[in-house]
Amino acid sequence: MCDICVMNSVKDKMLSRRSFFKAGAAAGVAATAGTAIGTPAMAAGHGMVEDMTHTLHEDFPTYFGESQFSREQIYNYAEHSFNLQQFTVNEHTGTHIDAPLHFSADGMSVDEIPVSSLIAPLCVVDIAARAAENADAQLTPEDLKAWIAANGDIPAGACVAMHSGWAAKVDTDGYRNFDGTAQHYPGFHVEAVQMLLETGAQSIAVDTLSLDHGMSADFATHYAWLPTGRFGIENLANLDKVPITGATLVIGAPKHRGGTGGPARIFAMV
Amino acid sequence: MCDICVMNSVKDKMLSRRSFFKAGAAAGVAATAGTAIGTPAMAAGHGMVEDMTHTLHEDFPTYFGESQFSREQIYNYAEHSFNLQQFTVNEHTGTHIDAPLHFSADGMSVDEIPVSSLIAPLCVVDIAARAAENADAQLTPEDLKAWIAANGDIPAGACVAMHSGWAAKVDTDGYRNFDGTAQHYPGFHVEAVQMLLETGAQSIAVDTLSLDHGMSADFATHYAWLPTGRFGIENLANLDKVPITGATLVIGAPKHRGGTGGPARIFAMV
Repeated sequence: MCDICVMNSVKDKMLSRRSFFKAGAAAGVAATAGTAIGTPAMAAGHGMVEDMTHTLHEDFPTYFGESQFSREQIYNYAEHSFNLQQFTVNEHTGTHIDAPLHFSADGMSVDEIPVSSLIAPLCVVDIAARAAENADAQLTPEDLKAWIAANGDIPAGACVAMHSGWAAKVDTDGYRNFDGTAQHYPGFHVEAVQMLLETGAQSIAVDTLSLDHGMSADFATHYAWLPTGRFGIENLANLDKVPITGATLVIGAPKHRGGTGGPARIFAMV
Repeated sequence: MCDICVMNSVKDKMLSRRSFFKAGAAAGVAATAGTAIGTPAMAAGHGMVEDMTHTLHEDFPTYFGESQFSREQIYNYAEHSFNLQQFTVNEHTGTHIDAPLHFSADGMSVDEIPVSSLIAPLCVVDIAARAAENADAQLTPEDLKAWIAANGDIPAGACVAMHSGWAAKVDTDGYRNFDGTAQHYPGFHVEAVQMLLETGAQSIAVDTLSLDHGMSADFATHYAWLPTGRFGIENLANLDKVPITGATLVIGAPKHRGGTGGPARIFAMV
């Protein structure tokens, strides 16, 4: 590591240390690996940023079970004095967006999602305890009612995220949890998203491979949500590191024309 | 367009209208197409978000002159009741990141860039008037000195962006501006980035195809900047719509393991 890299690394650690106190005091969130935001402009509203994105690689688990990401080295430093790759990816791989077009004939493509919906109040609905007992657990209307009773209405433009604890399994077979017949992991119950259609929520997010729970045979949740012009996020990371209310999700959706979705970089500002 | 889409469209227009006043009053920035941030959490620090990302498509101009993005429809709604594509992209296409690894043997890959550097105070250095006269114009140490004299020191973690006015040409041959021998568009002079190494800047950005000006034969700017562990942004959009100081860039860099860069979604919070 060069001197400058070492310095940056130390600085990052110092920033993280500082966030320990700032985030804890300001937002009541448990001290975590989040990085403090060192800019005066952001500091006015937020003290910490949490990266909600899994690292994408060839072996990242997928709904279909096959690898959906590959890369090819076009230029390499030894030969050409610079490095450059091209990569091929199924749009629905890694931490990614489901655009309305994914489950509709002519819905919005990923580049058409309004920017106002990509900066979203984050509402985290924690079903991790139930999911630990039952991999087929679903987020239900009752979970939403309990969240609203404790935290108030779902804000306009919100992203409502299911925290099932599944992100911790991402490097194991338990993430896809295929038993030879069906996959088993939590998702949104169709009645929960029908209830969310009556709120200001513009997106839902899951820390699993699918908006529907794994054993769903009909994609009922996808069909109830996406064709209404709202979008989804799958394989979200680090929901255990952000407060259940008060954070803002900045959703760096890809912007390729006509996309049905795609890998995204997602931050939570706390 | 469905009823809900119409409603969202109207709401977005209303938000934009509101930002006209909020942004003008709060940040002294010219009223633009920016979208107001409707969340209470963000509103504390920021009133407007500007999308700094060009839409990516097959014909997006490239340094090498050939198409660097393609997509394939794997599932289509008529036949399969859902849409899904895969796409192939050269990492250095569209609005994208140059990671340190792009021009070094073993520098940081794009997934290793610290999150603290991806939330960056934005310093816009405007050389558009000079670039309008001379396509080979470069951002020089004198430009930086003038910026600092007017606005104060470059903040820690800053992204210093060259605004040359080139983004307006993105759909024309004038963007790459190839005369049969060389390309002609502005970039950072190597001495400017050498000067920035003495500041807290962690990234530089250009609204053109390359950190180096188009006619550079040696990538001097790339080699002076990237191997130090700092990164670059190319083909940034909408620099004419943000203030020269005071905005915060949220850089949604891709997070594929070992990447030398890649298409990014980038917002400016004003």
